[in-house]
Amino acid sequence: MQALGYYNGDFGPLDEMRVPMTDRAVYYGDGVYEATPTRNYTIYAIDEHVERMYSSASLLRIEVPFTREELKKELYRMMEKMDQGENVLYWQLSRGTARRAHPFPEGAKPNLMMMITPYTFPNLDEPVSAITEEDTRFLHCNIKTLNLIPSIMAMQKAREAGCYEAILHRHGRVTECSKSNVHILKDGCLVTAPTDNLILPGIARRHLIEACGACGIPVEEKPYELQALRDADEIFITSSTSFLRRCVQVDGAKAGGRDAARFETLKNYIWNRFVSKTNG
Amino acid sequence: MQALGYYNGDFGPLDEMRVPMTDRAVYYGDGVYEATPTRNYTIYAIDEHVERMYSSASLLRIEVPFTREELKKELYRMMEKMDQGENVLYWQLSRGTARRAHPFPEGAKPNLMMMITPYTFPNLDEPVSAITEEDTRFLHCNIKTLNLIPSIMAMQKAREAGCYEAILHRHGRVTECSKSNVHILKDGCLVTAPTDNLILPGIARRHLIEACGACGIPVEEKPYELQALRDADEIFITSSTSFLRRCVQVDGAKAGGRDAARFETLKNYIWNRFVSKTNG
Repeated sequence: MQALGYYNGDFGPLDEMRVPMTDRAVYYGDGVYEATPTRNYTIYAIDEHVERMYSSASLLRIEVPFTREELKKELYRMMEKMDQGENVLYWQLSRGTARRAHPFPEGAKPNLMMMITPYTFPNLDEPVSAITEEDTRFLHCNIKTLNLIPSIMAMQKAREAGCYEAILHRHGRVTECSKSNVHILKDGCLVTAPTDNLILPGIARRHLIEACGACGIPVEEKPYELQALRDADEIFITSSTSFLRRCVQVDGAKAGGRDAARFETLKNYIWNRFVSKTNG
Repeated sequence: MQALGYYNGDFGPLDEMRVPMTDRAVYYGDGVYEATPTRNYTIYAIDEHVERMYSSASLLRIEVPFTREELKKELYRMMEKMDQGENVLYWQLSRGTARRAHPFPEGAKPNLMMMITPYTFPNLDEPVSAITEEDTRFLHCNIKTLNLIPSIMAMQKAREAGCYEAILHRHGRVTECSKSNVHILKDGCLVTAPTDNLILPGIARRHLIEACGACGIPVEEKPYELQALRDADEIFITSSTSFLRRCVQVDGAKAGGRDAARFETLKNYIWNRFVSKTNG
């Protein structure tokens, strides 16, 4: 199946693309990224993703060398080369290309890279399972960076346990998952960790909060513990490419799955929003 | 000046080298590295660096696809292409090449990359200065990974303050620097943070401890606080490429610099060890 890569204006088959060895992404992971689905050749929530990329870049003091409109145009130029309209579009911006040295390289220009691959949307009715894992990541989880080793290790552990995700916690305080946010529903109220430096301000998380607002479900943004997760009526896992998944097993034990009506309501709202915004 | 790159057996001028966009180093920083000086075409402390790379790889569950002897042969093959014998040799091993997905890619083979650049050894008699900075890194600092953003940000801050390094601390407990270990000398005794998950087990750190042993200076491996750093007789900063530097200013205030005799003794021991092991 067709998959494309892009690097500073050059396009090509993804698996044949090359980047400079001295791109700081290669040896420092010194960059930020975004990923979002496309449908009917429409890039979903593009403004929100572009905005977050600018925010991540700013927090790392990377000056984005183009405007939001220029970036969006380039993202569309890439996506429109695909044979099909349903894809995951990934892009990253690294600090620049230079010989390896920790300080910011003077005069280096950030590099824009993209990868796009065909995508089949998951069945949101299928419940998922998760493990829990100590959150050992750095204290900049609000920035969507390329420094992802602890997330990779946690995800691998989840997959080896036959699970969809690893729910991370700091000494018992639930933060997020390896590549998703996590939320609980209790007594008809959604509880979700606040957007501090311990979690990514997820765009699907924001859409879930909006869905709650539209559906009359109160939302509390506050820290919560593993015990609250285990006692929840429902456990929701959100991400840009997987929207809203319902988690019904944690560490091998039955969990959540006790408020099907609200899950249905929120899932339908979120999916319909996506469909209506990507009707081409 | 000549600088070379290497990727899975291919050599070329460093600034012209390219790596696959789908090498997991590029988008996850999913790999480990080492760097060491060469002199007279001898790679300094090669066995220790190779051993540590195997240890880092093992902690990330990356299976090294060659033996230690094969790796050393390849490092020498690279270095011998240089016009001069004094260089910094850097190498990294990433988990492999695959389409982007968090779980370990099945069947992917790790990629070996090297970069070598000419090097002029620093003048160890020149004292340095440092800032202090909250250590916000992940909890796997014992692994020498490519996930280096917090270190880069700290180093940049140090350089903007006109300093050589950033001394990191977790709520006051001194850990290490952005690319070096740090130690204090007090009442004739060396105090250095223990090798737990908060610091890299530095090879120059080990050489300093050996030097202390040879010179009759007692060593205590134990946590110490910022106040002890500020009250130290000497502050030592060690790294493989900078050996031993004496820090005499912290956050703009005079610090250390009160045990010149022991600094001289240790510096001479460490430099002479390096010279005698790299006489070609």
